[in-house]
Amino acid sequence: MSGYRYPVDDVRFCLEHIANIERIAAHFPNYSYDFLDPILSEAAKFSEQRLAPTNRDGDKNWPTLSNLSVQETIGFKEAYQDLCEAGWTTLSASEEYGGQGLPRALEVAVNEGVQSANLAFSLCPLLTQGAIDAIETHANDALKQTYLPKMISGEWTGTMNLTEPSAGSDLSAIKTKAVKEEDHYRVFGQKIFITWGDHQMTDNIIHLVLARLPDAPEGVKGISLFLVPKFVLDSDGNPDQRNDVFPISLEHKLGIHGSPTCVMQFGDNEGAVGYLVGEENKGLAAMFTMMNNARQSVGLQGLAIAERAYQMALEYAFERKQGSRRGSKDKTAIAYHGDVGRMLWQMSSILSAMRAFMYTASVESDLKQVDKTHQQRTDLYTPIVKGWMTELAQEITSLSVQVHGGMGFIEETGIAQMLRDARILPIYEGTNGIQALDLVGRKLVGDNGVAMIALLKEIRSDLSNISSQEAALFAPHLEHLENATNLLLQQHLVPEKAAYDYLMLSGYVIGGWLMLRGNQSDKKPQSWGNKTSFYLANILPRAAMHYAAMHSFKTKSDTDTETYNVDLLK
Amino acid sequence: MSGYRYPVDDVRFCLEHIANIERIAAHFPNYSYDFLDPILSEAAKFSEQRLAPTNRDGDKNWPTLSNLSVQETIGFKEAYQDLCEAGWTTLSASEEYGGQGLPRALEVAVNEGVQSANLAFSLCPLLTQGAIDAIETHANDALKQTYLPKMISGEWTGTMNLTEPSAGSDLSAIKTKAVKEEDHYRVFGQKIFITWGDHQMTDNIIHLVLARLPDAPEGVKGISLFLVPKFVLDSDGNPDQRNDVFPISLEHKLGIHGSPTCVMQFGDNEGAVGYLVGEENKGLAAMFTMMNNARQSVGLQGLAIAERAYQMALEYAFERKQGSRRGSKDKTAIAYHGDVGRMLWQMSSILSAMRAFMYTASVESDLKQVDKTHQQRTDLYTPIVKGWMTELAQEITSLSVQVHGGMGFIEETGIAQMLRDARILPIYEGTNGIQALDLVGRKLVGDNGVAMIALLKEIRSDLSNISSQEAALFAPHLEHLENATNLLLQQHLVPEKAAYDYLMLSGYVIGGWLMLRGNQSDKKPQSWGNKTSFYLANILPRAAMHYAAMHSFKTKSDTDTETYNVDLLK
Repeated sequence: MSGYRYPVDDVRFCLEHIANIERIAAHFPNYSYDFLDPILSEAAKFSEQRLAPTNRDGDKNWPTLSNLSVQETIGFKEAYQDLCEAGWTTLSASEEYGGQGLPRALEVAVNEGVQSANLAFSLCPLLTQGAIDAIETHANDALKQTYLPKMISGEWTGTMNLTEPSAGSDLSAIKTKAVKEEDHYRVFGQKIFITWGDHQMTDNIIHLVLARLPDAPEGVKGISLFLVPKFVLDSDGNPDQRNDVFPISLEHKLGIHGSPTCVMQFGDNEGAVGYLVGEENKGLAAMFTMMNNARQSVGLQGLAIAERAYQMALEYAFERKQGSRRGSKDKTAIAYHGDVGRMLWQMSSILSAMRAFMYTASVESDLKQVDKTHQQRTDLYTPIVKGWMTELAQEITSLSVQVHGGMGFIEETGIAQMLRDARILPIYEGTNGIQALDLVGRKLVGDNGVAMIALLKEIRSDLSNISSQEAALFAPHLEHLENATNLLLQQHLVPEKAAYDYLMLSGYVIGGWLMLRGNQSDKKPQSWGNKTSFYLANILPRAAMHYAAMHSFKTKSDTDTETYNVDLLK
Repeated sequence: MSGYRYPVDDVRFCLEHIANIERIAAHFPNYSYDFLDPILSEAAKFSEQRLAPTNRDGDKNWPTLSNLSVQETIGFKEAYQDLCEAGWTTLSASEEYGGQGLPRALEVAVNEGVQSANLAFSLCPLLTQGAIDAIETHANDALKQTYLPKMISGEWTGTMNLTEPSAGSDLSAIKTKAVKEEDHYRVFGQKIFITWGDHQMTDNIIHLVLARLPDAPEGVKGISLFLVPKFVLDSDGNPDQRNDVFPISLEHKLGIHGSPTCVMQFGDNEGAVGYLVGEENKGLAAMFTMMNNARQSVGLQGLAIAERAYQMALEYAFERKQGSRRGSKDKTAIAYHGDVGRMLWQMSSILSAMRAFMYTASVESDLKQVDKTHQQRTDLYTPIVKGWMTELAQEITSLSVQVHGGMGFIEETGIAQMLRDARILPIYEGTNGIQALDLVGRKLVGDNGVAMIALLKEIRSDLSNISSQEAALFAPHLEHLENATNLLLQQHLVPEKAAYDYLMLSGYVIGGWLMLRGNQSDKKPQSWGNKTSFYLANILPRAAMHYAAMHSFKTKSDTDTETYNVDLLK
């Protein structure tokens, strides 16, 4: 395949005409409308030309561990240096620490390209971004001054250390300890699944680590957050003494091979020097700061990898000749066979809905400091962005393999990597089951439905702008979401069982709404109208399906307590 | 995980009480009801104890090629010898050539275990079975006498050589040549994707090869079938001279690593000695004999791998403790979390429907020589069995990974292999797009709807036996299938675009019908009733979704010719 093309027109259209990025201009003095074009075209150049060619290297040449040190895939270090030199790590960061103070939505646009180009690589700057957010929001000034500038410039990277063998989705079970010693702490314990936990691309790595103080309360209320540098700094702020934190093992994974996933050992010797971020026992709040942005980013990863997989399928479908079209004897490109065409339309219309949602959510996120409404809307969107988009990434990468036929199963073709890489997305940063619970528990019921009902009203009022034909296709599904929302708020459904279908239903309806919004613009890209009508007729019926499926989980019937008892399956 | 358990009760129930295997007794004099138990329990023992432990070996220790010779995974040869010694290869084969003359449905039951235990390994006897079928049905007596006994005993294996670089789904493009020479032919050309094309498990391999005679008509009407042994036999029928057919390359695949997928070179030297099977230029018919059985077998592979993946997920979900249940502080197995329970029920109820359909189709296939009705029903079922079941295998293996959380992404856990192995199933033996076209083109429209309408009538008449509550859930979806059938027969839908959704719609409705049939039996296994109600309420709404999606492909509207033109996506 000739390579990845950054979908600059689609991104720009979604930002401008669906998400209305101009709404945020007043809140970001550094931002000007003129920035959009140069940033997108530079992002295109960097992701297409510099980064995309490194993707297969990472898949084939895995990171290695020796002498408690990880060597990343050869070539990644230079790509990382170029990423930093281009200033991509500083885009949305605070000016106070050397950032450019631009909207996060622009960063999302750049990251779409970076993640499409090389997902495994992109996790390193992404995790660093999460660490920056947590430090900026929760750490004291001294820590900020010491660490943020070099993390923002990309000179140092960051990691998130949450998971332990017995503490995955349930962080209350964390056992890693921290003991106070003078102006710092000593951290002891083991963390697993630490993405980019070690590498040679930078001369320091800043680990953020959840741990428990000796006298801490049980459960999540006894967790504190610590900053643990790979190298403790000297008095000038330069990396000096090797800290007592080491990678002791690398995972052998289904995908994202280029991303070293480490088991990290803290304090096997004298204890790892760590600094408290925020208050004692308030670590979980700080971690959520990191996670909420990270969750939207994982949704973006779903979009990014699906986009690249789709491009590969599209190109293959127009290159591969097999059979002939009805009424002709000439060999035809397989794209013209009805079922292949069906798959291509399915992928492309879903992708457009995903992108419309992604950029709408990212602009909303930039407005969240403006007022509570935007904060609530962002909170509501986050689990849907993460869950819905990463589920669809499974479908699109799998369809892309299918379009390749037998060649799709051959690793050298490259499309199988997309499927393997994508499979982590519904799992990490909170499984999609956790996202669904977050949506129904915290964001819907916990909010008394305020944010969701406001969204539903906005969607319904937009219905008056669209043609009656479109409305006839869309309105029944909006009604399903309205009804499902009421059923959950009125506790007619078992929330934790119906949550997944509710998340998917929400995603499909929001996607359709935003496709329709785009369809009203006279700036819409070629075929947006066709993709919208395909989405309404062919994809949106899934909303009805999820709505129907939720009804199998009614409360207060014998059904719930008896029929679907898992013990029956043993 | 403690290992695979052959689901003997479920298999037996489906054979006896859903597929009504007793219907075939009259046609198989060698078959007696008493055979069922010992065969199933021996199949359980062999697959669980002998074969299942070899599965990871094949995934990790790939076959290797050197000196134009393939060395299969170490340990597979002994497993293969044990398979043959147990007589599993002879079950349904004709007594005349050393077989046991038992119904194919019993063999399907045995193969479910073999395929669950080690899918990559199982392809070798499976392809041999296909070759046996083609030889038995189409070859002359001399070839049958010479080759069948040793293929049936398993002393020699068989392969199917169809695909060439430019001839995949479109076999009319085959370029491999055959030239007559005395009593045999010389074959020249290259075939790709040849499963178990070479190995050291047996002292001969019988390749069935599609090739073109010098004066053959163009297209599929000019293709002939040849038997090309790896070793040409001496006058006593023993392997003698090495024939001019060699594996020249092995594919590096996403899954089924233990199955050597070869590029086979025929006639690089003097030409490979081959013998004509059937008549000149009638090779495609012979190949279809192999393919039709193979297609049902691939559907079975979908069931088999989904069953094993589900068992792994179920076991993990009851072992892994994380979080606590509502109103409790104790750690709980994750199976008791609502969303994990949802996934387990989803998998198990779909699996029951798949198994009900699989054994019903296999018994039907055993009856096809009895009268044309059974032949037509079998022809109708085949693409649905292949397509629907292999699509669902993607879902179930992926859900099984999801239940494992982060561990699911780690190769050592073993569940990722199931996902990788399963991904070939919608591709080989005719992609699912090809299956859908076969269903709508040949089996529905080409048949004037006779077989499908007969099936719909049978399903509708069975409706009178079920409760009104069940009927209320099921009937609307049956109606969707009836309507969709009419829409296609009346050419209101573009067949090649609507075909995939029609195939899936058919599968879900047939699955529901057979679940309900099982539900009427007082011999039903524990939880069959619950699985049926789950299927009706939670899974069957997908039928409505596929029915709705088909409507996006109406004919005689601008929609088809303009809106969904793939050129718009370029």
